[in-house]
Amino acid sequence: MLIVLNLDAPRNDIENIKSKIKELNCIPHEIPGSTKLAIGITGDTHLLKEEDFQLMPSVLEVVRVTKKFKLVSREMKAEDTIIKFDDDLIGGKSLQIIAGPCSVESYNQTFEIAHELKEMGIIFFRAGAFKPRSSPYTFQGLKEKGLEILADIKSKLSLKIVTEVMNSNTLPSIAEVADIIQIGARNMQNYSLLEEAGSLHKPIFLKRGMSATVEDLLLSAEYIAAQNNFNIILCERGIRTFEISTRNTLDLNAVPVLKQLTHLSVFVDPSHGVGIWDKVSPMALAAISCGADGLMVEVHNDPANALSDGYQSLTPKTFKKLLNKISQLAPIVEKDFNL
Amino acid sequence: MLIVLNLDAPRNDIENIKSKIKELNCIPHEIPGSTKLAIGITGDTHLLKEEDFQLMPSVLEVVRVTKKFKLVSREMKAEDTIIKFDDDLIGGKSLQIIAGPCSVESYNQTFEIAHELKEMGIIFFRAGAFKPRSSPYTFQGLKEKGLEILADIKSKLSLKIVTEVMNSNTLPSIAEVADIIQIGARNMQNYSLLEEAGSLHKPIFLKRGMSATVEDLLLSAEYIAAQNNFNIILCERGIRTFEISTRNTLDLNAVPVLKQLTHLSVFVDPSHGVGIWDKVSPMALAAISCGADGLMVEVHNDPANALSDGYQSLTPKTFKKLLNKISQLAPIVEKDFNL
Amino acid sequence: MLIVLNLDAPRNDIENIKSKIKELNCIPHEIPGSTKLAIGITGDTHLLKEEDFQLMPSVLEVVRVTKKFKLVSREMKAEDTIIKFDDDLIGGKSLQIIAGPCSVESYNQTFEIAHELKEMGIIFFRAGAFKPRSSPYTFQGLKEKGLEILADIKSKLSLKIVTEVMNSNTLPSIAEVADIIQIGARNMQNYSLLEEAGSLHKPIFLKRGMSATVEDLLLSAEYIAAQNNFNIILCERGIRTFEISTRNTLDLNAVPVLKQLTHLSVFVDPSHGVGIWDKVSPMALAAISCGADGLMVEVHNDPANALSDGYQSLTPKTFKKLLNKISQLAPIVEKDFNL
Amino acid sequence: MLIVLNLDAPRNDIENIKSKIKELNCIPHEIPGSTKLAIGITGDTHLLKEEDFQLMPSVLEVVRVTKKFKLVSREMKAEDTIIKFDDDLIGGKSLQIIAGPCSVESYNQTFEIAHELKEMGIIFFRAGAFKPRSSPYTFQGLKEKGLEILADIKSKLSLKIVTEVMNSNTLPSIAEVADIIQIGARNMQNYSLLEEAGSLHKPIFLKRGMSATVEDLLLSAEYIAAQNNFNIILCERGIRTFEISTRNTLDLNAVPVLKQLTHLSVFVDPSHGVGIWDKVSPMALAAISCGADGLMVEVHNDPANALSDGYQSLTPKTFKKLLNKISQLAPIVEKDFNL
Repeated sequence: MLIVLNLDAPRNDIENIKSKIKELNCIPHEIPGSTKLAIGITGDTHLLKEEDFQLMPSVLEVVRVTKKFKLVSREMKAEDTIIKFDDDLIGGKSLQIIAGPCSVESYNQTFEIAHELKEMGIIFFRAGAFKPRSSPYTFQGLKEKGLEILADIKSKLSLKIVTEVMNSNTLPSIAEVADIIQIGARNMQNYSLLEEAGSLHKPIFLKRGMSATVEDLLLSAEYIAAQNNFNIILCERGIRTFEISTRNTLDLNAVPVLKQLTHLSVFVDPSHGVGIWDKVSPMALAAISCGADGLMVEVHNDPANALSDGYQSLTPKTFKKLLNKISQLAPIVEKDFNL
Repeated sequence: MLIVLNLDAPRNDIENIKSKIKELNCIPHEIPGSTKLAIGITGDTHLLKEEDFQLMPSVLEVVRVTKKFKLVSREMKAEDTIIKFDDDLIGGKSLQIIAGPCSVESYNQTFEIAHELKEMGIIFFRAGAFKPRSSPYTFQGLKEKGLEILADIKSKLSLKIVTEVMNSNTLPSIAEVADIIQIGARNMQNYSLLEEAGSLHKPIFLKRGMSATVEDLLLSAEYIAAQNNFNIILCERGIRTFEISTRNTLDLNAVPVLKQLTHLSVFVDPSHGVGIWDKVSPMALAAISCGADGLMVEVHNDPANALSDGYQSLTPKTFKKLLNKISQLAPIVEKDFNL
Repeated sequence: MLIVLNLDAPRNDIENIKSKIKELNCIPHEIPGSTKLAIGITGDTHLLKEEDFQLMPSVLEVVRVTKKFKLVSREMKAEDTIIKFDDDLIGGKSLQIIAGPCSVESYNQTFEIAHELKEMGIIFFRAGAFKPRSSPYTFQGLKEKGLEILADIKSKLSLKIVTEVMNSNTLPSIAEVADIIQIGARNMQNYSLLEEAGSLHKPIFLKRGMSATVEDLLLSAEYIAAQNNFNIILCERGIRTFEISTRNTLDLNAVPVLKQLTHLSVFVDPSHGVGIWDKVSPMALAAISCGADGLMVEVHNDPANALSDGYQSLTPKTFKKLLNKISQLAPIVEKDFNL
Repeated sequence: MLIVLNLDAPRNDIENIKSKIKELNCIPHEIPGSTKLAIGITGDTHLLKEEDFQLMPSVLEVVRVTKKFKLVSREMKAEDTIIKFDDDLIGGKSLQIIAGPCSVESYNQTFEIAHELKEMGIIFFRAGAFKPRSSPYTFQGLKEKGLEILADIKSKLSLKIVTEVMNSNTLPSIAEVADIIQIGARNMQNYSLLEEAGSLHKPIFLKRGMSATVEDLLLSAEYIAAQNNFNIILCERGIRTFEISTRNTLDLNAVPVLKQLTHLSVFVDPSHGVGIWDKVSPMALAAISCGADGLMVEVHNDPANALSDGYQSLTPKTFKKLLNKISQLAPIVEKDFNL
C-alpha cells in the first residue's frame, strides 16, 4: 500500500502517518520523489484499510499495490530512480558503461586496462577480487590483495569501482573500496547477503540469476529495498536455455518489461550474455536500442591470456569502436551519453 | 566438400567435374557467386578425396566443410545471399520490413491495412490465409477465400506477398499468390514440407521452431537448399524458456551467430518474440542493432478486435513511429533502408 | 459443453439433441462410455445455454467443460479410453510395451529383432520406414521398401505394427500396414497431418513435441479427437532443457498430470527420453511407477552398427531383464502385465 | 590425480606420499575405502607426472581423473559412500526417507507431525527454521525459536534432524541441532557457504539448483569434498523449464546419471519436484525405481493451513500409504528398506 503526500507536507504529519502504520504492525518506507512525497507500506497490508489513512492530514491519495514486489515497483514510485556519484548519474536519461576485466589478476594488468578505459572517458570500472567459480580448482581471484589493487587504482585514476561480494565476511572490506557493490547471478537468491549488503545503503548492482524470472529478480531487489536502500541497479546477463551456440541466452525482452515494472535502472551485461567476444558489440548495441540504462562490458588488454572469461572479453581497441557506435545510437533512443 | 573454380571456367570443365561427382555417388550443387564459381558436394563425401578433383582443369581449390550443414554455410559460400524482387532486395546491405496483420480477416480489413502500409513505403506485405492454431476451436484463417483476397490486393497495390503454408495440398495455390512462402515455427522440422516447398524455387521464409537450436534451424534450411533453392530467409521469433512475463524469449544472440555461420539473410519477428505490443518497437530496434537483415512485424488497424494475435500487433500509427526510428538507426549499422 | 444421457436413451432423442446442436452452429460428438452416454459439443459453445438442453427428453445433465481441450478431457469422459486390438488392450489396467528398432534397416535385421521380441511375448512392434532426421544427409529410412518389410513380418509373426507417418502422401500406404500410426515429436503441431491421420479412425500414437507443454499436447490430441477418433495414445519422450548430460529431459511429472486431465492412455519412451542405453531401464521402471500405461522402447540386435539411435537401444538380452523387472513392478502399481 | 595403495600401507609411506604432493604445490586427500586406500590429489595437477609417484613404496597405481569434479567422482572412489548415523545408514543398499513439514510453525504442529512420523518408523525428520522465500513479505521461518523446537523434539523423540542453513552467521547454531545440514537449491552455488558448512565435517544435504546442470551440482559438491568432507547427499528437486502445469520439472534422468558419475548418495525431493500433493506419491515411487537412495518428502498434519508449501504436502495418512508401496518396491530395485 502506498500513501501519497504533498512534497511540503509537515514533518509532523509524516511522523503521525508512520506511527499509525507501525501501530498496525506494518512497516513504513519514505520514498524519494521530485514532485510528491510517498510512504510505502510493507508487511501484512491486507489487514489495512484505505480509510485508515485517507482522512489523515496531508494525505492526497492511498493506493493498493497489486504486484508481489512493492517498493521497487512503478506503482509505488513512478519516477525513474537516479543514483548520483558526484557529477555522474546512473538512471533516467543518463547512459553509462561499466567496463573492465573479469578479474584483478595483477597490479600492472589492472592498472593498464583501467588507465586505457579512463582515457576513453569511462567512469565506472569493474574487476573482481573475489570470483565465484563453478569449480573449486579454477582461479578464485586475488581476494584481499585484489581489493588493495582496486583501492590503489581508484585513488590514482579517480574511477568509480564496481566489484562483487560473495559473502558477509568480506562485505565490510569490499564496501570500503567499492562505489557499487555487485551481487552476482549465483547469489541473486542469497537473501541473507541481499539484506546485509542492502543495509549498508551503498548502490547495489544486482545480476539476474540464470533461472530467475523477471519477477524473481524484482523480489530479490525488494529484499534490498526493504532495507530502505533504493540505490539498486538491475542487470540482465543471460538465462539458461537449451541453446548451446552461445554461453547463455541474453533475454533482452526483459529490458522493456523491467523498465515498465520498476523505477530502478536496468543494465545489460552482453559479455556474459553471449559469451563470445565478437558477438558482444552487436548485443551491446541491441541492449541500448531496447532501452537499457547502461552496460557492463568485459575489457581485457590480453584476452588470450586472461585468467578468467578471456573468450568473451573485448580488447580496448574493439571496445573503443563500440563506444563510438554507442555515441551515435544514444540520441536515437533519447539517452545522454557523454564520454 | 566444395570445389572452387574461376568465374570464367569453361562449361565443359564444369560438367566434367559434376559428372565425376555423380560417378562417386554424391550430388553436385552449383553455388552462385560474384567473384568465384563453386560446386558444393553433398552426400557421402567422407569417401571423396581432395586429390580426385585438385588436378582437374579449372579447379582452383578443394575445401572440406566442417559443419553438419553444408550448402547454407559460410564455408561453402562466403558472400551474402541476396534475393531480388524486381528492384527490391533482401539480404546484403539492404534492410527490409515485412508488415501486415496476423490473419486475413476480411477484404476490407486487409485492404485498409495494406493500403496504409503501402503509403508508408512498405513493399512486403504479410497476412495469413491458413493459420496454425494450438486449439482446433480457434479461428483457423479464411483459407482459399483469404488467398483470393491476397491475390486481389497484390494486383491492386503492387505489394509483394508473404504468406504461410501448412501442408502440401495447399502449396500450389499458395505459391501462385505468394512472392515469399512462409514456413512457420511449428513446421520447421516438417521435412516433407521443406522439400516440397523448396523444390518450387520460390523464396522461403523459414521461422525457427520454439525449441530449435541454431544448428537445427540451419539443418532445416539445408533441406530447402538441397533442392537447389538458395532463396531462403531465416527468422528468429522467440524460443520457449521458463520466463513467463513475455510470450516467448526472443533470442537475439542468434542473429550475430547466424550471420557468421550462414550466407542466408536473417530476419527477426519481434511481434511473436515478445508478444506484447508496447515492447515490439524496442525489440525491433534491438534486432536491427545486432545485425538483422530485416523484420517481420504484425500491424493491425484495430488490434482490440483482431481475430488472432491482436495483443502483439502495432497500430499503423505506432508502426510509422517505429519506421522513423529505423531510418535513423540503419546507417549506424551500415544498412540501406529506403521507404 | 457436455450432455449426459442414460445408456438406453432412444436413438430418436439422441438425434434430436444432435440436430439442435447443429442448428446452433456447433458440432456434436457421441462419446463412448460403459455406464452413461454423452454428447460432447465443440465450436462456439459460449453462445449455448444449459437451459437449451436441460429439459430435452433423456437428458440427465448438462456440463460446462472448463479446459481449452474438450473431447480428450476427463471432464468430458471420466472413464479411461481402452483401445482393443483383437484380444489385446491398450489403456485402463492393461500395461503394454511397444518395442523394436528405431528403423527398418533390412529384412534380416528387422525380422531377427521382431522374432526375438515375439518370443519374449511382445505384441506391439515398432520400426520406422520413414525417418525424420535433423540433417538431410543422414539415413532417412528405407521408405516404401521398409513398409513392405514390415507388412511381411506382420503377416509372418502376427505382431501389431507401430510406425511413423511424416506426411499425407505416404499416409495411405502406412495406414495399410500400421495397426497404430505414430506421429512424431517434430510433427506434433503439424495440424494438417493430425487431421488427416485422425480421420482414418485408426489408433494414433502421438508423441509430445520437444517444447510442447502438457496443454499443447492435449490440444494436438484434440485435433485428432475432433475427427471423432478417440483411439489416441499420448507419449512423453523428453523435452528440451538446459541439461546436456542426457539427450532430452524426460518429464515424468507429465504422466500423473496427464492421467488426471485426460481419459487417453499415456505412454513413455525412455529411449529418446534419456538417450543413453544404460539409463533406459531405470527410466522405464520409473515411468511405470508413476502411472504410465505402457512404454515404447528401442531394441536392436546390434546397437553398435544401427543406422540410427544405436546409442540408446537395448539389446534383446538387456530388454528381457527389463521385462522381468516390469513383471514384478506391475502389480505394485495395480497394472496387468501379461507376456 | 589418484594414487592407489594397499589398505595396509604403512603410515610412513602414506605420509611420504602426502609430503611429496604438498611439495609439488598440490593438495592430498585421503579417501576412505574398504578394500583399497587412495590419496586423491587436487590443485594444479597438470604439472604432476605419474612417474613422480609410481615407484614410491606401497603405491599400486596412479590414475588421471578426467572429469572436472575429482573427489566426488567414481573415478576417484568406485565404492558407494555410506554415511553412518548410529545404526542407520544413508547410501549403498540402504533406502531412507526424510520426512516432515516444510517449516517449523509451532511446537505443537512440529511435535505432532514428528510423533506421527516416528510411529511410522521414520528416522530422519526435516523441518525448516530458516526459510529462503522469494518474497521478503512471506513467512521466513521461526528462526532461532524454530531451532529450539527442533532441539527439543530431537531429544524427546530420538529423531535425526535435517534442517536448512542460509548463511554463515546461523551455521553454528544450526550445526548444533542438525544431524544433516541442508543447503537449498538457491544456495547451491553460494560457494562460501559450501566451504564453511563443509568444513564442519557434518553430513551435508545439497539440493540441485533450479538451473544447475548435473556437472554444476557435482562441482558444488566438490567444494564440500575439498574440505575433506565426503558426507554429502545430493538431491534432485526439479529444474526450471517451460512447462507450467507443475511447479518444477523433476529431472529423474539425473538419478541414474549421477549414480554413475559419483560415489555420493542421490536423493529426490518429489514434493518440490512436482509441487502438487496428489502427484507426489507417483513421483516418489518413480524416483526409487530409477535408483534413488532415498527421498525427502513434505508431510503436514494440516496442509490447507500450512504457512508454506501446503499445496505440495502429504497428510500423514497419504504418506503412510506411500511408505507401504515403497516397502513393496524396494526389493525389486535391490534396496533395503526397514521401517
